[in-house]
Amino acid sequence: MGKNSDTDTDTAIQSIEWREDHLRILDQTYLPKREVYSDIRDVGRVWEAIKKLRVRGAPAIGIAAAYGFYMGIKELPESTFDSFLVEVERVAEYLEGARPTAINLKWALNRIKTTIQAHKDKPIDEIKEIVLKTAKTIHDEDKRICKKIGENGVSLVKKDAKILTHCNTGSLATGQYGTALSVIFHAHEEGKDLQVWVDETRPLLQGSRLTAWELMNAEIPMKLITDSTAGSIMRQGKVDMVIVGTDRVAANGDTANKIGTYPLAVLAKENDVPFYVAVPLSTIDMELENGDEIPIEERDDEEITTFNGSQVAPKKVETYNPAFDITPHKYITGFITEKGIIEPPFKESFEKLFED
Amino acid sequence: MGKNSDTDTDTAIQSIEWREDHLRILDQTYLPKREVYSDIRDVGRVWEAIKKLRVRGAPAIGIAAAYGFYMGIKELPESTFDSFLVEVERVAEYLEGARPTAINLKWALNRIKTTIQAHKDKPIDEIKEIVLKTAKTIHDEDKRICKKIGENGVSLVKKDAKILTHCNTGSLATGQYGTALSVIFHAHEEGKDLQVWVDETRPLLQGSRLTAWELMNAEIPMKLITDSTAGSIMRQGKVDMVIVGTDRVAANGDTANKIGTYPLAVLAKENDVPFYVAVPLSTIDMELENGDEIPIEERDDEEITTFNGSQVAPKKVETYNPAFDITPHKYITGFITEKGIIEPPFKESFEKLFED
Repeated sequence: MGKNSDTDTDTAIQSIEWREDHLRILDQTYLPKREVYSDIRDVGRVWEAIKKLRVRGAPAIGIAAAYGFYMGIKELPESTFDSFLVEVERVAEYLEGARPTAINLKWALNRIKTTIQAHKDKPIDEIKEIVLKTAKTIHDEDKRICKKIGENGVSLVKKDAKILTHCNTGSLATGQYGTALSVIFHAHEEGKDLQVWVDETRPLLQGSRLTAWELMNAEIPMKLITDSTAGSIMRQGKVDMVIVGTDRVAANGDTANKIGTYPLAVLAKENDVPFYVAVPLSTIDMELENGDEIPIEERDDEEITTFNGSQVAPKKVETYNPAFDITPHKYITGFITEKGIIEPPFKESFEKLFED
Repeated sequence: MGKNSDTDTDTAIQSIEWREDHLRILDQTYLPKREVYSDIRDVGRVWEAIKKLRVRGAPAIGIAAAYGFYMGIKELPESTFDSFLVEVERVAEYLEGARPTAINLKWALNRIKTTIQAHKDKPIDEIKEIVLKTAKTIHDEDKRICKKIGENGVSLVKKDAKILTHCNTGSLATGQYGTALSVIFHAHEEGKDLQVWVDETRPLLQGSRLTAWELMNAEIPMKLITDSTAGSIMRQGKVDMVIVGTDRVAANGDTANKIGTYPLAVLAKENDVPFYVAVPLSTIDMELENGDEIPIEERDDEEITTFNGSQVAPKKVETYNPAFDITPHKYITGFITEKGIIEPPFKESFEKLFED
């Protein structure tokens, strides 16, 4: 696949790459200790990579799933469209089950299904190639969208801003650049003198492992803190703004994101710190009226009770381990999108945006 | 030392024990995997045990320091009171430097110094025995006080209360029973049908390692969560009250406690959840007008950047790792003390309490 000239002008990491006939991913479970790239050639391994967070971040999950979809259908022997479609649905359903919260997974799969339907009169082999092309388009679009989000967010960032972020929203989480981190990267590139506070983001430490790694690679000044420290530094006036990403936004602006986002939003409001969510429009789910309708993935006990295979809590301890929480829209100052900054009332603003 | 009949009627753990001529501690750094007891025979090892959190929790630190004080002076060759006093001051200063935030450390040392002064006319050897006796008294008093705190707090606990707690405030953190956990233990003993939410408490996981262990030993229903999950469960109405301990309370009620306490207090207020601090009066520092005057200990990078000796963040990453934060008094519903429940305005209530 030829690179777009407008997206490869910097050194941002590419965590997902299509290589002729297979997917190459930077396996995020090994970071920051080792940079391990994995070549993936079948849909089962894509499913596993998403489930096990080898690929993670809402946009990146969507991209990986799109390529996975192609891998899942490319060898199908079916020769009639109707029998082919049955298998297509099966593959889509399988991939969608890997992680429930991020809308991008479903969005990418639906987009490909719609494309398949639109070409139902073409030979199956040709449809398969169209699916691959659509996956590549989704990937390319994401890079351009993330770049645009970064550019649009820069105006919100003060010259010497102290920015707090949570989880990982960088190149690792997207096609390139990221969402919240894209704003930070672009503000840094424009010469702003940033200081970034990085929450470690328990239980899987995406902040320590991934965001710290990306920011250090980009030589952006940062300090790592425990999630619990964020409140204290806001109270001390050491945070000018919070920027996070999201896995799904409901039509009213309620936002699902990595567990710990809601506390940050409440603390930001309490301390008069603006709280922004950087989001591609594909992550906004206008079918859901509010955040209560967003499914929240619960994950295994072991993420909390063990560490590197070592037990850190009593055996058989019960846990509650949701991967995400919901931040009600009232705590959100604005959404940074590829179409500009969206301010409240969000429902009306979103509706207008999607009408255009 | 004979046990008090009113404090050994249950199975609560004793993490500190004076054994004829030395201190035996349950080394908390090995929990929950192993129950390792260490015999400590000199003041240097007491200092190390406090610094390295082998003994931790404000009241337990005070008790250990009191015994450590005795170990630090018992072999002194000085035969005149004045020369003895110079060494006494040196030992006290040394121990006080182990951890700056918990007032109990300073409080216990000052109490012993006052006792020494009061007996200045006695032979040095006799004074040394009085110091040991004072240490034992501090220890015994703490057990009785913790029991009383637990009993006093029970009235605040609903029959089927869902209680959130942070860090460890149990028998491990005190002479016996604990502070916040004493309330929980006593409410459970009275037959209340509790559900306790235990924050893991990064970075050192006192919640996962210690509180979960104590509650499971006591067969009290509990669930372990990441610190970031507390906000979400409060928003879902799954928390009836928050009870925490404290390392130092200023005269106006501002409260220093384990990092992450302030966010819990803000989240509790936002969700109309009562927020209580369980505290022996010895932890209230009437010399400090407000929380800004409480020194906050900053600890090593490695607590965040490594886990069980394994690197989890990029090498050379900068961190900010305060062990405590300050919760302004306006977020606190009440203090649970050995003298009863203290309600706002705290400054006036405390002043009245200390006048009595």
